[in-house]
Amino acid sequence: MNKRIAFYPGTFDPVTYGHIDIIERSASIFEELVVVVMENPKKKPMFTMEERIELLKLSLPHLNNVSFDMHRGLLVDYAKSRNIKVVVRGLRLISDFDYEFQMALANKQMCPDIEIVFLMTDPRYSFISSTMIKEIASMGGNIEKWVPKVVLEKIMEKLRK
Amino acid sequence: MNKRIAFYPGTFDPVTYGHIDIIERSASIFEELVVVVMENPKKKPMFTMEERIELLKLSLPHLNNVSFDMHRGLLVDYAKSRNIKVVVRGLRLISDFDYEFQMALANKQMCPDIEIVFLMTDPRYSFISSTMIKEIASMGGNIEKWVPKVVLEKIMEKLRK
Amino acid sequence: MNKRIAFYPGTFDPVTYGHIDIIERSASIFEELVVVVMENPKKKPMFTMEERIELLKLSLPHLNNVSFDMHRGLLVDYAKSRNIKVVVRGLRLISDFDYEFQMALANKQMCPDIEIVFLMTDPRYSFISSTMIKEIASMGGNIEKWVPKVVLEKIMEKLRK
Amino acid sequence: MNKRIAFYPGTFDPVTYGHIDIIERSASIFEELVVVVMENPKKKPMFTMEERIELLKLSLPHLNNVSFDMHRGLLVDYAKSRNIKVVVRGLRLISDFDYEFQMALANKQMCPDIEIVFLMTDPRYSFISSTMIKEIASMGGNIEKWVPKVVLEKIMEKLRK
Amino acid sequence: MNKRIAFYPGTFDPVTYGHIDIIERSASIFEELVVVVMENPKKKPMFTMEERIELLKLSLPHLNNVSFDMHRGLLVDYAKSRNIKVVVRGLRLISDFDYEFQMALANKQMCPDIEIVFLMTDPRYSFISSTMIKEIASMGGNIEKWVPKVVLEKIMEKLRK
Amino acid sequence: MNKRIAFYPGTFDPVTYGHIDIIERSASIFEELVVVVMENPKKKPMFTMEERIELLKLSLPHLNNVSFDMHRGLLVDYAKSRNIKVVVRGLRLISDFDYEFQMALANKQMCPDIEIVFLMTDPRYSFISSTMIKEIASMGGNIEKWVPKVVLEKIMEKLRK
Repeated sequence: MNKRIAFYPGTFDPVTYGHIDIIERSASIFEELVVVVMENPKKKPMFTMEERIELLKLSLPHLNNVSFDMHRGLLVDYAKSRNIKVVVRGLRLISDFDYEFQMALANKQMCPDIEIVFLMTDPRYSFISSTMIKEIASMGGNIEKWVPKVVLEKIMEKLRK
Repeated sequence: MNKRIAFYPGTFDPVTYGHIDIIERSASIFEELVVVVMENPKKKPMFTMEERIELLKLSLPHLNNVSFDMHRGLLVDYAKSRNIKVVVRGLRLISDFDYEFQMALANKQMCPDIEIVFLMTDPRYSFISSTMIKEIASMGGNIEKWVPKVVLEKIMEKLRK
Repeated sequence: MNKRIAFYPGTFDPVTYGHIDIIERSASIFEELVVVVMENPKKKPMFTMEERIELLKLSLPHLNNVSFDMHRGLLVDYAKSRNIKVVVRGLRLISDFDYEFQMALANKQMCPDIEIVFLMTDPRYSFISSTMIKEIASMGGNIEKWVPKVVLEKIMEKLRK
Repeated sequence: MNKRIAFYPGTFDPVTYGHIDIIERSASIFEELVVVVMENPKKKPMFTMEERIELLKLSLPHLNNVSFDMHRGLLVDYAKSRNIKVVVRGLRLISDFDYEFQMALANKQMCPDIEIVFLMTDPRYSFISSTMIKEIASMGGNIEKWVPKVVLEKIMEKLRK
Repeated sequence: MNKRIAFYPGTFDPVTYGHIDIIERSASIFEELVVVVMENPKKKPMFTMEERIELLKLSLPHLNNVSFDMHRGLLVDYAKSRNIKVVVRGLRLISDFDYEFQMALANKQMCPDIEIVFLMTDPRYSFISSTMIKEIASMGGNIEKWVPKVVLEKIMEKLRK
Repeated sequence: MNKRIAFYPGTFDPVTYGHIDIIERSASIFEELVVVVMENPKKKPMFTMEERIELLKLSLPHLNNVSFDMHRGLLVDYAKSRNIKVVVRGLRLISDFDYEFQMALANKQMCPDIEIVFLMTDPRYSFISSTMIKEIASMGGNIEKWVPKVVLEKIMEKLRK
């Protein structure tokens, strides 16, 4: 597998400053980074996969070595199909740890070649999630500290519908 | 903001001995305490907000410095509208910690003046929640150790419907 | 109550190698073990209670001192009806701990005679759950390391429907 | 190995009501229980191993199926020498969990036949330890809620020296 | 007991920006706050209790309702001697939680009137401790982000000796 | 800073199969890996820093892109002196998490360029540490599942002295 490339999978519904922090730092560590919008069959998303990629592109400064993709199915299948072995994940509060540990071990057993590397989320963003942000926005809260302006506007647009 | 007053927000669907313990202790620390029944848009409640206030009043001994209110929306908006800066929260088992930490930090970023103070729940009630109590009651379990008699009767009434 | 017998309650929807490990070890500690398929009113199961017992029987080697049963309702009611005081539970990652602790204390308050003994799940199976396995299978993942062949086939059959 | 017998190893420097709770409950689950005072080479104890056994005997009501022993060395070596496979451990707050998990897995790898069963400590005693009790007593605190009278007196005697 | 006053006990060896944050916020919640330097008999301190009070005074802006004291012995004995019932504690990362929970419950059992209220430490200071800061300084690290200048200078002075 | 190189700092007193697993996986992710033996001023080591490097070299298969170094002082100073920005750390059980999180954030504040990437330790080695292995060996336990033969022999040699 190609060890120069890493991918960063997530639901990104929508992208937050927490995700952007992980993307920028990963892009400085690995030669190439693919940000992969995943389908989460258990949750009804606010944005389509296409809209989510669009918001990621609009929210990030241009980075030469970052590209975008989307995937329906298992993370390990994406890894195999693209021949990428390194997966990047952000770790937030301790609550993430167990879930990420479980997923890492399950993926590792399905595909022993895969390596999951974790980056600690910046403490300023360590307590936010896309879900919480949408919830706060739906109750009229101010979310401008946690998402770029373009994302804020799109959330408001969806909520007005 | 008025530092003499604190408020204790919660769903209280319905009030338990764990809540009552926190209310009595908070009322002994602060000059005035407002118990605020909050709407939880993600859960379908067993009791209406009015019924929940009624059960709180029936369950608590008369305390001169405790009053009751209800609120739909964000906790910080209630704080601002009433000019109260201190929020009381009970901490139960470790599982609460992450969630409470997240909410505290999110609220603090939305409204830096707010102060959230945590009281440890009495170990006798540290493992119960309104949700677990309703679940146990619906399966025919005895819940009299965890809720006042008036609450027990109202739960039974709802379950019979 | 009869201290020679223990029971191991669970949803078992379906049985995994993690459950099988706990059953075999419990059967070596206690004189008799009853594996009890419980109804979980909050989840829509993949298999009926009868199918789950069938899969347990097909997955386990014959053990003289293990029998099977099913129960709708509270764990403590089963314990009382069968006059069994010892409950066996498997502990996986730390995330289990809080929930198991809560349930153990709630059951203990409802029925002080009950004793819940915990066995640590084998680290190889410590990160899998029936839910995760069904999810991975539904996305086309290979689950043969986590469930017996007969269980794998029945899951595939259900997914094809 | 003899599955009728379990042993409960610990430093017991000195025995607390938390230990006594675990001993009484274990004695009601297993046919025979051996309480084993272990040497802890890393800590300087307040009581000799003989004194600790003496305090255990004085603190416990007579139980037909409980005996006492002492051991210097590894827990697995004691298990092998006595041909006992079941080890009982009490779980207190979450902080115990990691350490107990580590020890359980290390012992299991050294001696796969061993089974470690955990009992939840009664919440009233879930936050005390022999170390904390000695510390509080040395600062003049009242420890009578946490240790039997005979233990309290022996601690005071040691502290006066 | 006097519910207008709270005290904030700690070793403060030496005071950090994390402590200062908790002091300023507590002073805005309670009418009077006493910061109490405690002896920690288990650790050899860098600063005498008098020096620690001095550094606290030099590090804090003048606050009308904050005073300083020192105490050798149990927290509950200080509370009783001063007739103060409210104790303030800062909660940092999850690791604090268990220890603080244990201490809170032990103190509560020794003196049921006491109320311990917890404030979440600012995330910027949530990972620092006096111990870590002294360790980093002793290895030549830059600690100016975590302690006031006057504290930094006194640490350097001690390290040169 | 040079993003092609990562370093893996640790006490390695002595190296275990857990460390070896992290080294081999890191070497497959990064172009170059430097394993750095750090002085731990708080612990009295069993092996000198030179002996620890020697044991690392003897324990690892030849890997073209792995080199060894030692450092007295702060991790960030090593990073700066060698112009390396990526630090690799292994995460074991949850207990590691808080400590690693603290250290990661402290280092990040001292040197914002540094990136700490975490790899999950293989579950087979997730519960062992150099300290526990030395302790078990000193009590006569069999440690051959956790360290290479050459390390086992050197530990025995040290213990005989």
